[in-house]
Amino acid sequence: MRLEFTKMHGLGNDFVVIDCISQRARLDTHQIKQIADRHFGVGFDQLLLVEAPTRPDVDFRYRIFNADGSEVQQCGNGARCFARFVRDRKLSRKTKLIVETASGIIELNIAPNGWVRVNMGVPRLEPNDIPFIASARALTYPLDVSDHIIEISAVSMGNPHAVILVDNVNTAPVREWGRIIENHPRFPERVNVGFLEIIDRQRAKLRVFERGSGETLACGTGTCAAVVAGIQQGLLDERVRVQLRGGELDIRWQGEGHPVWMTGPTARVFDGVLRLYEWQ
Amino acid sequence: MRLEFTKMHGLGNDFVVIDCISQRARLDTHQIKQIADRHFGVGFDQLLLVEAPTRPDVDFRYRIFNADGSEVQQCGNGARCFARFVRDRKLSRKTKLIVETASGIIELNIAPNGWVRVNMGVPRLEPNDIPFIASARALTYPLDVSDHIIEISAVSMGNPHAVILVDNVNTAPVREWGRIIENHPRFPERVNVGFLEIIDRQRAKLRVFERGSGETLACGTGTCAAVVAGIQQGLLDERVRVQLRGGELDIRWQGEGHPVWMTGPTARVFDGVLRLYEWQ
Repeated sequence: MRLEFTKMHGLGNDFVVIDCISQRARLDTHQIKQIADRHFGVGFDQLLLVEAPTRPDVDFRYRIFNADGSEVQQCGNGARCFARFVRDRKLSRKTKLIVETASGIIELNIAPNGWVRVNMGVPRLEPNDIPFIASARALTYPLDVSDHIIEISAVSMGNPHAVILVDNVNTAPVREWGRIIENHPRFPERVNVGFLEIIDRQRAKLRVFERGSGETLACGTGTCAAVVAGIQQGLLDERVRVQLRGGELDIRWQGEGHPVWMTGPTARVFDGVLRLYEWQ
Repeated sequence: MRLEFTKMHGLGNDFVVIDCISQRARLDTHQIKQIADRHFGVGFDQLLLVEAPTRPDVDFRYRIFNADGSEVQQCGNGARCFARFVRDRKLSRKTKLIVETASGIIELNIAPNGWVRVNMGVPRLEPNDIPFIASARALTYPLDVSDHIIEISAVSMGNPHAVILVDNVNTAPVREWGRIIENHPRFPERVNVGFLEIIDRQRAKLRVFERGSGETLACGTGTCAAVVAGIQQGLLDERVRVQLRGGELDIRWQGEGHPVWMTGPTARVFDGVLRLYEWQ
């Protein structure tokens, strides 16, 4: 099978993007794992498949897969790369795209400079919706970690996030606490853990320990969750620029009931052609 | 700069191969590091640049670079991929290629099944040539490792190798001993460390801890060195099939003064086009 693809990244979170509209491409789990291997294949954090929509009111459908072949609900960095891909490949000339994903309909806006703005959905803050075990909703919750009690916020952006305020992200115990909190019994579906350093009301720094992966260069949903937690606590304004290890994201949130908007860069690294049969 | 490349691997040791004859390609250290990055670039263990020969008696010249931009002397897996690339790209129709490398002239033979046979040169066994500090040449040398005295062989294949016989490669302390022996003061230029399990006189298993890298899937020169050590000790015949973590290699050595021949597979994973300026 001959397969054209594009390798892209959003802040170092890297993607193999495949146009399944112009070419016939059906990949099974074994083939996804083959392509994911960084020595024997192409290598990616997630695979994005661009497909024709299944309903008339949207422009495209896209699906996201992890390197182990499992399907992913939501990925902010992937959404930006998808939008850039669709435009670069001239699959659409629109600057506003309405897209079907496994977690619902999302809206993407492409800026002239190539940055993409993504509607990341309305954050959920009720403990049951995250899910997080707590007797009542609060701004922060005490949580036992090692021998400490630390204060965390809990936010769902379609996936669960715990956010911890720290004085300095460089010295924060990201790996040690990340592992413990990820598997804390009060998060029954485990949790992503963000360590947020507030610089001023419009700027922050963030490191994220991702559920099942460890620390990553940039987590889109984690950045949204951290800004929501900071705004809820009265520490941040409604527009915030966040510095992550892989680069910067702009987050905007007008408060409870509103969606979070994330704006950030994309990079197209190379175009490639795979011949899957040759590996067998 | 637009750059065509091919991603290949030899037993999981992966390469970006660039034809610098048909296209103009000058890469500086910064660009090599960019391409090497597995998230922001293409990703490779080594970069192979295929160039026109600088002398009339050879077919090609090729150069090998590590991910940090430093130039490498010799790489058996890379030599096989180079030969397959030259043939696939129709840069030559010869099945026997004479090639200039940083470590001298090598000969490559391409079999109809795509396997490539490489003359890996004459092994050197004198301690000074490895370099290894010893009062006189011997089949094996006692070496202090942690609280043990273990017996090692010492072989140079253009780069230094220590070889240790083990009962079972799966349970051998590859990482622990590898680190200690790599930096042992008796190897002034450090050393690659092979753990060799003899199955019978024609078959063996090997794991290699590579100098500066840790354990790898397959080390071509390490496989040659291990078979030389086994033959010298009277444990192996002159043709041996070696099982590595990444796959199998056939090694042939007719004894002291003769070159070692290594035969093994190659895989072409994909062809790609980079646009380096887009990343800036």
